[in-house]
Amino acid sequence: MRKQITELREKMKELGIDVYIVSDKDEHLSEYTDAHFCALEEFSGFTGGDGTLAVSMNNAALWTDGRYFTQAEDELKCSGIELMRIGVAGTIPLLKWIMDELPQQGTLGFDGKCVSYFDGCTYLRAQSRGAKSITDKDVCGLCWKDRPAETVTKVWLQDEMYCGKPASVKLAELKAQMAAVGAKTHVLATLDDIAWLLNLRASDIECNPVFAAYMIVTAESAVLYSDARHFDKEILYYLSILGVELKDKDAVFEDITEVASPVLIDRKRSSYELCNSIPAGSHLIDRMNPEMTAKCIKNDIERKNIRIAQHRDSLAVTRYMHWFKTVVLPAAAALKPGENSGYTEWSTAEKLHELRAADKHFLDESFHTISAYGANAAMAHYMPSESRPVAIEPHGLYLVDSGGHYYEGTTDVTRTWSCGELNNEEKTAVTLSVIANLRLADARFLEGCSGIALDYAAREPFWRRGMNFNHGTGHGVGHVLNVHEGPTGIRYKAGTIEGAYPMLEGMYVSDEPGYYEAGKYGVRIENMLLVQKDLSNEYGNFCSFETCTFVPMDKECIDISLMNDEDIRLYNAYQQRVYDELSPDMDEAERAWLKEACEPLRRD
Amino acid sequence: MRKQITELREKMKELGIDVYIVSDKDEHLSEYTDAHFCALEEFSGFTGGDGTLAVSMNNAALWTDGRYFTQAEDELKCSGIELMRIGVAGTIPLLKWIMDELPQQGTLGFDGKCVSYFDGCTYLRAQSRGAKSITDKDVCGLCWKDRPAETVTKVWLQDEMYCGKPASVKLAELKAQMAAVGAKTHVLATLDDIAWLLNLRASDIECNPVFAAYMIVTAESAVLYSDARHFDKEILYYLSILGVELKDKDAVFEDITEVASPVLIDRKRSSYELCNSIPAGSHLIDRMNPEMTAKCIKNDIERKNIRIAQHRDSLAVTRYMHWFKTVVLPAAAALKPGENSGYTEWSTAEKLHELRAADKHFLDESFHTISAYGANAAMAHYMPSESRPVAIEPHGLYLVDSGGHYYEGTTDVTRTWSCGELNNEEKTAVTLSVIANLRLADARFLEGCSGIALDYAAREPFWRRGMNFNHGTGHGVGHVLNVHEGPTGIRYKAGTIEGAYPMLEGMYVSDEPGYYEAGKYGVRIENMLLVQKDLSNEYGNFCSFETCTFVPMDKECIDISLMNDEDIRLYNAYQQRVYDELSPDMDEAERAWLKEACEPLRRD
Repeated sequence: MRKQITELREKMKELGIDVYIVSDKDEHLSEYTDAHFCALEEFSGFTGGDGTLAVSMNNAALWTDGRYFTQAEDELKCSGIELMRIGVAGTIPLLKWIMDELPQQGTLGFDGKCVSYFDGCTYLRAQSRGAKSITDKDVCGLCWKDRPAETVTKVWLQDEMYCGKPASVKLAELKAQMAAVGAKTHVLATLDDIAWLLNLRASDIECNPVFAAYMIVTAESAVLYSDARHFDKEILYYLSILGVELKDKDAVFEDITEVASPVLIDRKRSSYELCNSIPAGSHLIDRMNPEMTAKCIKNDIERKNIRIAQHRDSLAVTRYMHWFKTVVLPAAAALKPGENSGYTEWSTAEKLHELRAADKHFLDESFHTISAYGANAAMAHYMPSESRPVAIEPHGLYLVDSGGHYYEGTTDVTRTWSCGELNNEEKTAVTLSVIANLRLADARFLEGCSGIALDYAAREPFWRRGMNFNHGTGHGVGHVLNVHEGPTGIRYKAGTIEGAYPMLEGMYVSDEPGYYEAGKYGVRIENMLLVQKDLSNEYGNFCSFETCTFVPMDKECIDISLMNDEDIRLYNAYQQRVYDELSPDMDEAERAWLKEACEPLRRD
Repeated sequence: MRKQITELREKMKELGIDVYIVSDKDEHLSEYTDAHFCALEEFSGFTGGDGTLAVSMNNAALWTDGRYFTQAEDELKCSGIELMRIGVAGTIPLLKWIMDELPQQGTLGFDGKCVSYFDGCTYLRAQSRGAKSITDKDVCGLCWKDRPAETVTKVWLQDEMYCGKPASVKLAELKAQMAAVGAKTHVLATLDDIAWLLNLRASDIECNPVFAAYMIVTAESAVLYSDARHFDKEILYYLSILGVELKDKDAVFEDITEVASPVLIDRKRSSYELCNSIPAGSHLIDRMNPEMTAKCIKNDIERKNIRIAQHRDSLAVTRYMHWFKTVVLPAAAALKPGENSGYTEWSTAEKLHELRAADKHFLDESFHTISAYGANAAMAHYMPSESRPVAIEPHGLYLVDSGGHYYEGTTDVTRTWSCGELNNEEKTAVTLSVIANLRLADARFLEGCSGIALDYAAREPFWRRGMNFNHGTGHGVGHVLNVHEGPTGIRYKAGTIEGAYPMLEGMYVSDEPGYYEAGKYGVRIENMLLVQKDLSNEYGNFCSFETCTFVPMDKECIDISLMNDEDIRLYNAYQQRVYDELSPDMDEAERAWLKEACEPLRRD
């Protein structure tokens, strides 16, 4: 039995709680969280990316999905926590479990600040009408020994030359939108929306340039609720000029009890406690945050900067490819049995970091680099590790998925290249991924078309052959912000209406089809695209994509017999464009190599 | 000034209402309504398919969209009602209008039974907190002279040999689903869901085989609220055996005030009054009705029957095409100037009805036949009329979109064929529509993929050329039920999450790309498809489409130079299949004609 569970039960008993739910979220329901909010990991020992723990006096169980079954089985051993496999027939649903464990009129508890509003409502359905619940106590926090303090980093101002629009204008536009829907108050809890609205950035969460905060906006006022240690004098002055009042973070839970109705709030992206603190009887205008729908459209200045950031990043990644092909692979090929070149997934990724960091405008990685050799690339969530070195060998495929934050923007790029001899299966996988990537990038579509409608362009070459890749084809990317940014996306399933959001001019989205064979290899080819205006006529405004990423797609992996003439034309045009974009900034040796790498494909 | 508006204002004054909203919906928010519920038409004079009227003491305005601008301009002349063009810049939104017209603490009114829950909530946002509203009065009804009585038709039982599943089983499955989500009560207002659940049909609404009713279901009980005149002794006996209690329709508004929480209700498909009558503090499980998600999946028996219905219907439509090509067109071609063959859009449609009605299993048309010659086909909502005869001429294109209810199922089919000489534009439009139709029907996809993801297969040939058709590519069809049945659909925009609903085995969906040139011609090629299992492997269950409609696609309209080899293969295979399906049931002359019509296309 895990010690932390025993201690949690003692605290539950003290407070009269019969069943307590532990979430893996922070107060802002962020995709990635600061260690301070990793209560799920602390109390269960499970380190997977998604899970919910429920504890009663006699039982404990953790729900997670297929991506984490193996890991959870391992990590939950001897913990006294039963693993509940979501999606597997016969698994007891969380709600049913709570109902079974909760005594008649028993008390249910969860930390309402770290549980989404709709999850909270679902949990409470397990209770009889009138039964007691405790949702305003962080019970884990009350018995968590050596809990890491909340990370508080320095906030900095994103210059208008990079963001293209002063926060004063963004605030004025927000207030106009509030007026248009008849909202007197707007409550905001999502960190990237706040960072975007105020043109402020920080590093409270690794690779995510945000800071922990809430906001309440009315026609007359804007209040930012955040730890004062974030803000130097200059930023405090900036906020005061902007008319934004700074208050302590927790004050939001008092102020919200007195806000004027109607209240514009995105309950899907707000905690139970926050929503529940709005005065009873208020009209709620519950829709996607207007900041979210505004920031996914990159303005002209942002787009101009994105092209610069992409050029800088493409240069670094192509240099990395050059180094890999001309230094790492020859070294690996020259090894005698038993020798070790020292080039591993980890060490090569460090070289990539070095190449990016050589750029003065580079700020940080936009996520942890996936540098995966051979079969490791088949694992979607694979991370190289310094302590488990995996050598690069002179055969098979290597995949690298990485990105950076620059002053000018955020990037995300994946290439898969050959390390030597390839088999037909590997070539087919890369060729289909290249075909899919280029066909999607070549689509023309009417503005307003759902991202879902475009997924078929990339998915069809696989589906036709009874193949598939088990992830979305594209996701939105923030501007010097989170590398996963909704609601933009290209996928074939829609779990929520946001998942079916329209594609609009100015959106910035990844195009990353791939193919994976467990235990063998993994392929992904990823470019970033900007949605641009195309022809307009009586049918409306057509859009197409502007490709922003310029890194060669390895010719050695291509099986031209799988391509139709149009595929070959698209491929050759892309490679030529890569050469044209990058060669002026390269030295002689790099340029000669790039020239050869970008030579057009021709049918025999 | 329209008399009815004056009378409405008098009644509003009497009741102390400052602003009153008139909806165009019935109590069940049906797509088509009985004349009893056409308050919008009665009070405004506007007969378009979609609109909202708002009346204050001094002003009145009607909101409608682009499909109806011309019609509304015409019909609202001298009515004293201002036309508000939705989607046109500068148009005052309804909510803003109400705010402007409503005095401080003024009273807002609407018939909450005929306004959707979310529309009602939106209207009420126009008020200050605490202001009065009257939502439980049908004010139009109080001053509507000669209002048509509610249509009450005889309910009949759909035999198990046609529907494949007894209502007792459907009810048991519903109760299991309620238990699974923790619902104690389920409230149901949608007519096709009720008809499906109880395996009962009627004709309260033209072409829609439903009857006006509500239901409240608990673990122990099922109550049907409906006018007793619907039910003969046999049906009453059937209901009693089924354990369904019958009560008067209006009793639902009393009973709902005492239902047990949690309540499973689809608020998007329920009226404001119904939702508002649920006891305060109830937990609501607000999601798509489980009947809706169940009935869109046709069971094996339904599918078997659908194939039979489609065969019967394809035979009738192909006979119609044969008659049209061999009788109508020669007659039209033989006319001398000033002569009249008597063959019009209306009279030919009557012939089509006759051919369908000759089948003993035919019940009714599933919608009013669109029989449109030349430029008339460019109007999406065109209806032929007996009083405005339009002659069929021996040139250009003719479009016929029609369908039937049979004991075995419901059909919907469109063909566009040549009446003689065609120009290149017309040929291109038909050829692209045929290509788009056949490519979509040939798609392979993973089960669970959104219908939106498949739209691209049909849309791409048009978008590539900067062309488009301004309607969805496909809609679900009921089983001896409404010809438009959610949530199944194939389109490129998603207004709601239901619009992005997954495609699943057993769904029954139309495939109807087309192309329209205002003032010139209109093209649509529509088949019905069933979603069937295809190969299953480690990626999941692939699905593909089974085409159910077999009517020739007119060879004379095809420009083969626009087709790639695969398009030609698909076309020839379809035409051959039509011949194989229908020829055994045809007479000698029909068969010879069909043989020629289905001859394969070949490149010169």
